[in-house]
Amino acid sequence: MENSSPKVYINSDHRGFALRKKICENFPEFIDLGGETLDENDDYNDSAVSVVKEILKDPENSFGILICGSAIGVSIQSNRFKKIRAAIVEDEPSAKLTREHNDSNVLCLSADKIGDNPEKLSETFRIIKAFLETPFSAAPRHLRRVEKLDKNYLLEEN
Amino acid sequence: MENSSPKVYINSDHRGFALRKKICENFPEFIDLGGETLDENDDYNDSAVSVVKEILKDPENSFGILICGSAIGVSIQSNRFKKIRAAIVEDEPSAKLTREHNDSNVLCLSADKIGDNPEKLSETFRIIKAFLETPFSAAPRHLRRVEKLDKNYLLEEN
Repeated sequence: MENSSPKVYINSDHRGFALRKKICENFPEFIDLGGETLDENDDYNDSAVSVVKEILKDPENSFGILICGSAIGVSIQSNRFKKIRAAIVEDEPSAKLTREHNDSNVLCLSADKIGDNPEKLSETFRIIKAFLETPFSAAPRHLRRVEKLDKNYLLEEN
Repeated sequence: MENSSPKVYINSDHRGFALRKKICENFPEFIDLGGETLDENDDYNDSAVSVVKEILKDPENSFGILICGSAIGVSIQSNRFKKIRAAIVEDEPSAKLTREHNDSNVLCLSADKIGDNPEKLSETFRIIKAFLETPFSAAPRHLRRVEKLDKNYLLEEN
């Protein structure tokens, strides 16, 4: 890429705390928006929103990584925001595919599924690398669908 | 449940067409909002929106099942809508967990990962059954987070 490297923001709830710290050790360039002390009562919503808000300041040049127990909570919360395309990914091919097809800008990881397994942790690092390095294909059909994502929504009271 | 059974709406894009037909054969009570003929040019967005719109007419008594290649496209699109909580699920324990913790009302399935494998298809039927039969735990912490999902959003032009 001729651009400056995109910024990568990371956060988690308490269930993802340990994994977040391990990821940040391996990728010291990531911007960790989470706390240094474990708060057992925090909500996945707030960590998701902290990352979303940073991405929305410069969506063309930012990525997010969000972790909670199942990855589902952070994925629902972050996809409530236009211009955010958050994908739950559990393997390297899916990481590439969602960048190519969905132009995903937030990677959601399940702390429960990765756990303490060193092999799973190495695979997670490869997933992150693949996600950050794979460009959007920009094929017309994918572009049409990505653009539709932000045309179909209803977040007013109904 | 003392209520009448919830309605279950299902749809898919072309990538999920064959799997949708197999699911509807096994669950004839589901309301299939998709076409009878394969349209290779359809977009996951439109199938997601068709299901979302039906759920929003009676959110307390409806579920949705959405299928695309990776499940990511339909998951992003449907989570753009308040009151929709769409979860990508690939195993039975996750189906139960996302009902208990997230009160998920849309199950997103990856046609690519299930493929033509009969065992995967049987597992998918069990996932669907677990999703539909597991109640929300309604523990205060889960309820607080589910309610926050619809307070944090930004879908206006920014």
